[in-house]
Amino acid sequence: MNHQRGKQSIVFSNRPYVVGAAAVVGVKEGQGPQRKWFDFILEDDIFGEKTWEKAEGKMLKKAIDLALGDGRVPEKQVDLLLGGDLINQLMIANYAARDLQIPFLGLYGACSTMTESLIMGSVFIDGGYASNAVCAASSHYCTAERQFRMPLEHGNQRPPSAQWTATASGSMVLSGRRSPGRNIRISAATIGRVVDPGIKDVNQMGAAMAPAAVDTLLTHFRDMDRTPSDYDVILSGDLGNIGKNILIDMMEKQGCPVTEQYNDCGALMYTDSQDVHSGGSGCGCSASIFSGRVIKEMRQGTLRRALIMSTGALLSTISSGQGESIPGIAHAVVLEAEGGE
Amino acid sequence: MNHQRGKQSIVFSNRPYVVGAAAVVGVKEGQGPQRKWFDFILEDDIFGEKTWEKAEGKMLKKAIDLALGDGRVPEKQVDLLLGGDLINQLMIANYAARDLQIPFLGLYGACSTMTESLIMGSVFIDGGYASNAVCAASSHYCTAERQFRMPLEHGNQRPPSAQWTATASGSMVLSGRRSPGRNIRISAATIGRVVDPGIKDVNQMGAAMAPAAVDTLLTHFRDMDRTPSDYDVILSGDLGNIGKNILIDMMEKQGCPVTEQYNDCGALMYTDSQDVHSGGSGCGCSASIFSGRVIKEMRQGTLRRALIMSTGALLSTISSGQGESIPGIAHAVVLEAEGGE
Repeated sequence: MNHQRGKQSIVFSNRPYVVGAAAVVGVKEGQGPQRKWFDFILEDDIFGEKTWEKAEGKMLKKAIDLALGDGRVPEKQVDLLLGGDLINQLMIANYAARDLQIPFLGLYGACSTMTESLIMGSVFIDGGYASNAVCAASSHYCTAERQFRMPLEHGNQRPPSAQWTATASGSMVLSGRRSPGRNIRISAATIGRVVDPGIKDVNQMGAAMAPAAVDTLLTHFRDMDRTPSDYDVILSGDLGNIGKNILIDMMEKQGCPVTEQYNDCGALMYTDSQDVHSGGSGCGCSASIFSGRVIKEMRQGTLRRALIMSTGALLSTISSGQGESIPGIAHAVVLEAEGGE
Repeated sequence: MNHQRGKQSIVFSNRPYVVGAAAVVGVKEGQGPQRKWFDFILEDDIFGEKTWEKAEGKMLKKAIDLALGDGRVPEKQVDLLLGGDLINQLMIANYAARDLQIPFLGLYGACSTMTESLIMGSVFIDGGYASNAVCAASSHYCTAERQFRMPLEHGNQRPPSAQWTATASGSMVLSGRRSPGRNIRISAATIGRVVDPGIKDVNQMGAAMAPAAVDTLLTHFRDMDRTPSDYDVILSGDLGNIGKNILIDMMEKQGCPVTEQYNDCGALMYTDSQDVHSGGSGCGCSASIFSGRVIKEMRQGTLRRALIMSTGALLSTISSGQGESIPGIAHAVVLEAEGGE
């Protein structure tokens, strides 16, 4: 059976169920406008651990445990964990996978990891290659800043275009079998290509990612023969305030305006008064808003069909040091709420 | 349709074809005993580039281009690139994906990346979610050493248990349709769990990975109701000389001896006189021997059924610095040669 639509899009014939989901966030994220949608808010970003990395690992595992609890899926019934994070060699996800003892496939897509894991998880579930799969992604301000930019102790000034790496983990449990009262399904997806607009400033990530996001959106609408109005919401993550406006402009110029339905997780995560400059970033930002707010809104009936798209800036500290530009990538997933509860 | 056998293994009903494959290696690897199986041997490990990282990116792209040529699959007919490398933020694979403009899903499994990509590629092809997929992995001695251990200029002494990161890239093209004269198929796979024997010495990677490899092998034989004698060859990569012997001992103790069919890519890559101590490592080591030697031997008819298993040591420079142990993981894939040419 051919599930392909065009070269990059997939239609799922069995439409995997999202039976459980959870979002765990840090202190600052818990003070922001999305507060009520999160399942667990840390009292302290060190989360009782000795290092920021161990704290992030504990946060990711907490998000997975809560999602499994939400879906009433025992850990031993999970066949597959798909996930990743921003820390070198996927340190956070690796240690979470060690603690969970679930068969594990590690992914790196920078901030595009959440939808990357959802696409792979959906393929495994839809085709009968796994019965229950956990998809997860995580980021932490304190682990990411010291790896990608400066040690926190350095106290360096951030330019206005900089984004704030969210301390956040999100997780969804996909299954071939629906749970009682749950009816959110993954119906389609579009896998992104790497698009490089040639930007070399690591504090301009929104601009570096926006063209990839536009490429994936246009491809999605063409492959699926749909328009933006076919969706209640189109949510990217995380272009931030600058990247969001670039995307809106570019889509307008392409004759495919998205203004009505569109928003960005990086733009939604914090208020202006939280001093995060161009908004949130980090793969946990979109992971926590998709796993927290979007899933809850679909369960409540305020959203019926959502196009969620995590976006990644594929820079590394090495490539930046070697004068390379920052390529972007974006993967999109269609979530559909079915019936009432 | 349920393709699962046990919790961790998959049987592919359509058995994807490996229609093309290629291995590109560095100078030292081209002087070793596997020389005749490689498709392209670098004259200089810098490969005409300004940095080791750019050289590795060019090497990975070369392996992909050669594999596509071997399979007579035009680049524009490839729906999906699955791959990874050892360098922070998957820098090598990201830039190769940018140059190729193929929809891309980045993976990190340390040295287990080649079979991780083959499992995912097989699931996409087998279920009709992609028509042609490229699976690839890469490592380079000079990029890996300075990231994980010491700058080469430091000239530090390596302990006898250390392994030598191979300068090598391997790539396979999977397809739902066979090519004329080609008849190698992927029939099954086993996804590994993270197993941590508690080893903290980054120069004892074979010992850190062997228990994960044993776990995956025993699970594979149990799930598939098979024994080692069902395979012409069982090839791990890359436990090196020490890890290989640990695996042999452990399998013997578990009542499942593998001595007759078993070898390790790290043990095969170099001769003793090449001064690499405990053998080869790096995800390119197993990727190049699987994509080079195993595929060619299957085409020649000297191998009919092979169990290939890449093994990963999930350490990071950060986790080692924080006193964490090194978890291991291993994923296994069954290759079958069908009929004559």
